[in-house]
Amino acid sequence: MELNLNSPLLENAIAELAKLPGIGHKTALRLALHILRQEKSMAHDLGNSIITMRDNIKYCTRCHNISDKDICPICGDHKRDSTTVCVVENVKDVLTIESTHVHHGLYHVLGGLISPLDGISPSDLEIESLIERVEKEGIEEIILALSPTMEGDTTNFYIFRKLSHLPVKVTMLARGLSIGNELEYTDELTLGRSIQNRMPFTNSFNKNN
Amino acid sequence: MELNLNSPLLENAIAELAKLPGIGHKTALRLALHILRQEKSMAHDLGNSIITMRDNIKYCTRCHNISDKDICPICGDHKRDSTTVCVVENVKDVLTIESTHVHHGLYHVLGGLISPLDGISPSDLEIESLIERVEKEGIEEIILALSPTMEGDTTNFYIFRKLSHLPVKVTMLARGLSIGNELEYTDELTLGRSIQNRMPFTNSFNKNN
Repeated sequence: MELNLNSPLLENAIAELAKLPGIGHKTALRLALHILRQEKSMAHDLGNSIITMRDNIKYCTRCHNISDKDICPICGDHKRDSTTVCVVENVKDVLTIESTHVHHGLYHVLGGLISPLDGISPSDLEIESLIERVEKEGIEEIILALSPTMEGDTTNFYIFRKLSHLPVKVTMLARGLSIGNELEYTDELTLGRSIQNRMPFTNSFNKNN
Repeated sequence: MELNLNSPLLENAIAELAKLPGIGHKTALRLALHILRQEKSMAHDLGNSIITMRDNIKYCTRCHNISDKDICPICGDHKRDSTTVCVVENVKDVLTIESTHVHHGLYHVLGGLISPLDGISPSDLEIESLIERVEKEGIEEIILALSPTMEGDTTNFYIFRKLSHLPVKVTMLARGLSIGNELEYTDELTLGRSIQNRMPFTNSFNKNN
């Protein structure tokens, strides 16, 4: 869309907004015009909240989850099982797994996945600190909860190898049919895997996790 | 979505982002986490571009279009027909109409539509300044290019009445079938109107507007 907006100020704001994921030029224009129609204070609140968040956000020094304190509330919760640590790609995955209410242990946020194509190597991620935790914290089980993608599998394998000399059980999320999806619409790879990894029949409706 | 994000900074940024139209809580979370993964300079550029735009944007003193100067490039373009003025709701509509390359006159941006339900009365809009322009600028035709909605029609009628004592032709955008849409899928109101307002057959493919 080539538009003459007659205003470098507006064009600049649109260009910055359009850098956000899922926001194209047209949406950015709509957002900018909306902001122009609001009170000045709204633009200040929005702009400053973005800058302040980015400048001052802290991460838990133990699990690298977002936290305003040195230790996040999950790591600081003594009722949680500190012997089981769930390894996730990012902060959002912590929220997603928390929303299932099934994991009662701690987390370890890698901050990404190994991806040579994107120039992300193991040293860019919180893998060394994970190994250290396993060595020092008496962790009994590491649950690898990464996406079932090539990058996720590469990262899984890398961590698995790094942990192989340590006395810790390493598990990963089950892969199989999505609950509620019809067999017909399941992709062949998933279906094939779920035949290979078939499991003993249990009445999962009565099974309490 | 009730999530414990462990960070008032993040929660605040999400709340501000979610005030934007079309951006819900989930999208706001995704945007905020994206911003956290970028360099600090990106957050500063984005935040400051929004604040600077809102603080420093100017509007053309003649047509109220966005402009970094007192008079916008369209009003300042002497090749355009200053006797024909197209009245639009907002700045975006100027861009939309410009993209048709059919209107060669000037514009007048109202800044909204009359909407008693939303508390927008004629005095909130640039209607008085439109009357003044008609009285002073030798305008021969006012093209009302407002949305075919209740608010648009109310505003059309209000302006038409205000201009009725002045020697100016008032026209409005044709309403009828959308080009390329099948008759079958045209709503009844539009179809009924386009029968009432049927026009002499012309070979519009050759017609050079």
